[in-house]
Amino acid sequence: MKGPSRSRPILVFGGGVIAEVAIEELRQGGHENLTVCVDKGYAASSRIQGLPIIEWDNLANHASPLTHAAFVAVGYQNLNRFRKDKLSALQSLGYSIISVTPDEKCSAENALVAKEAIVQVGARIGSNSFVWGGATVGHHTEIGENCWISSGATIAGNCHIGDFSFLGVGAIVTHEVNIGADCIIGAGAIVTRDLPAGTVVVSKPSTISKMNSTDFITLFPI
Amino acid sequence: MKGPSRSRPILVFGGGVIAEVAIEELRQGGHENLTVCVDKGYAASSRIQGLPIIEWDNLANHASPLTHAAFVAVGYQNLNRFRKDKLSALQSLGYSIISVTPDEKCSAENALVAKEAIVQVGARIGSNSFVWGGATVGHHTEIGENCWISSGATIAGNCHIGDFSFLGVGAIVTHEVNIGADCIIGAGAIVTRDLPAGTVVVSKPSTISKMNSTDFITLFPI
Amino acid sequence: MKGPSRSRPILVFGGGVIAEVAIEELRQGGHENLTVCVDKGYAASSRIQGLPIIEWDNLANHASPLTHAAFVAVGYQNLNRFRKDKLSALQSLGYSIISVTPDEKCSAENALVAKEAIVQVGARIGSNSFVWGGATVGHHTEIGENCWISSGATIAGNCHIGDFSFLGVGAIVTHEVNIGADCIIGAGAIVTRDLPAGTVVVSKPSTISKMNSTDFITLFPI
Repeated sequence: MKGPSRSRPILVFGGGVIAEVAIEELRQGGHENLTVCVDKGYAASSRIQGLPIIEWDNLANHASPLTHAAFVAVGYQNLNRFRKDKLSALQSLGYSIISVTPDEKCSAENALVAKEAIVQVGARIGSNSFVWGGATVGHHTEIGENCWISSGATIAGNCHIGDFSFLGVGAIVTHEVNIGADCIIGAGAIVTRDLPAGTVVVSKPSTISKMNSTDFITLFPI
Repeated sequence: MKGPSRSRPILVFGGGVIAEVAIEELRQGGHENLTVCVDKGYAASSRIQGLPIIEWDNLANHASPLTHAAFVAVGYQNLNRFRKDKLSALQSLGYSIISVTPDEKCSAENALVAKEAIVQVGARIGSNSFVWGGATVGHHTEIGENCWISSGATIAGNCHIGDFSFLGVGAIVTHEVNIGADCIIGAGAIVTRDLPAGTVVVSKPSTISKMNSTDFITLFPI
Repeated sequence: MKGPSRSRPILVFGGGVIAEVAIEELRQGGHENLTVCVDKGYAASSRIQGLPIIEWDNLANHASPLTHAAFVAVGYQNLNRFRKDKLSALQSLGYSIISVTPDEKCSAENALVAKEAIVQVGARIGSNSFVWGGATVGHHTEIGENCWISSGATIAGNCHIGDFSFLGVGAIVTHEVNIGADCIIGAGAIVTRDLPAGTVVVSKPSTISKMNSTDFITLFPI
C-alpha cells in the first residue's frame, strides 16, 4: 500500500460492495484500523464488514485528517465523477490519500489496483483509477486519472487511456491505441483505432439459440 | 486443499487429462499418496502420471473409504452430470470428498479452482464446480454447484451462475447478471442480461480472411 | 530463468520496448550483468534502461560468446522471422541462448514467458516463442516455435499452435483446435476449428455509437 504505515488509521468512504472489496484488500495488506464513512442518510446498516459506519457530517469528531488517511471506495457513477468529487472533498478537508495496490504497481493517490490485476513493465496507473482483478495493462501503457478498468479487460502495450474513461468487462484495446477522455468501451468490445474524447463503443450481446441446452447437447454431445 | 491432511491417501476418479491436471495440482499442494480409479474397462493404460490405475469394482480392496478421501476429476460430459453422478456414487460408498483449490478460495466439496483462477472478494464457488486458470469470478458473484467455468472466462461482480451451467473459453458475463441452471455459454460469448434455465448462447467464430498470411503482412506489415 | 547462473553476463539483442520488458524481467530474476546490442545504426540513444548499447559489429570486443549468454528481445516483425534470424545468427556466432521465464514454465531457448502468463498443467512452449502477461495456455496445449501469444489471449486445453503463428490481444482458441504454421489470429478473434497453415483470421472492431458518453449516461445512467 502506498502512503501511511499500517498502524495509521484509515478512513474508507463508501458503503457498498466496492467498499467491501477495498476493506478486504486493506486488511490483507495488514491495515486493521479502519473506519467507514457514508453520506448522511446513506448508511443501509449499522456496520459493513464488521466495521462501524459514521456519517460525513461527523467526520471531524470520529476520523479527523490529523489522525486518519483516507480512501474513496465507490463505483463509476457519473462516469467516475462521483468518486472524483468525493476525493476532492476529502483533500479539501486536509486528508492525505492512500492507494489500495501492491507496492510495486502504483504510486498514484486513491488508485485501486487489485492484487490479481496485471500491470506489465513500464505501465502506469493514474490517480483515482481502479483496475480490477483479471484486467491486464500492457507494457508502457498509461491509464489516465479517474478511470475504471473492469475485470478481464485487456489493454495491449503502448496505449493511452484518457481521464474518466470506462472499460467494461473483457474489453480489448490493441497496441499503440490512444483512447480519449470520457470514453465508454462496453463489455467485450474490441478497439483497434484511436478514439476521440467522449466516444461510446458498445458490442452486441451474443445471440441466444432457439434450442435449449438439453436438445443442444443431444445434437452436439459435450 | 480443503479436507484431509496431506498424509491422508486420496482417491482420484478419472483417467484423462482432467485427472492429470488434478493430480498435478494435488502434488503441488503436497499430496503424494494418490490412487487413480476408472470405470471397469476404461483404463487406457496401466498408469497415469506414474500412478497405478484400479477399476471401480475393486475400490473396496485398494482404496477403502475408511482410509481414503476422494475427488472426481472428469470433464463436463452431459452438462456436468456425469461428474455429479460419480460424486454421488462415491458419497454413497462413504467417501469423504476433498476439493482441489488454494485454501482461501473455496470451502465446497469436489470443487477444482485452479491456482491461476481469480476469485475476487466475496465470491463463492459451489460444490463440484470447476474454475480454470485464467478465469475470473467477480466480487460477490456466486457460482452454483456442478458448474464448469473455462479458461479466460470473465464473470463480473454480483452475478449468479446457476447449477450445472457451462461457460466456454473467454466467455463474458457483465455485472449483476443472473444465469439460470443448465445454461451453455459458448466460447467468447457476451451475456449482458439474465438468462432463464436451459439457455444456450453461442457466439460466431470469426471470419477467415481470403488472404494468406504472407500476402497479409505484405499489405499490413507487422 | 533457464540457463546460466545469475552471475554470468547476458547479451540482450534489441533496442525497443520489448528489450525494455526483457531487461526488467531479467533484473527481477536477479540478473544484473546485462549488455544491450542493436544492429549498426539502430541505436536511438546511447543507453536503454540505464545500460550502454553496443552495435552488432562490435559484439566480439564487448560481449564475446566465451563470456556472455544471449537473448533476442524484439517483436514479431515479418511474422516472427526477424527474431528467428537474429537468434540463428547469434547461435552461429557461438552464443548459448537463455530464456526469460519463471523456472517451471519453460525449458526452451529464447522463449519469453511473462511472469503473469498462465501456463497450465502439461502445456509446453516452443523455442523463441513469446507469451505475454495475461495470456493463458491451456492444459496439454503445445505452442510451437517462434510464436507470439499476445496479452489476454486464451488458448484452451489440448490445442496445438503452429510455428511462427501470431495470436493477437484477447484472441480465443477453443479446446483441441490445431492451428497451422504461419497463422495470424487477430485481436479478439474466436477460433473453434482447425486452421491450415498461413490462415488469417481478423475480427471486426466493435461499432462506435452515435451518442457521445455524456448523452449516453443520461439515457443509461451508470
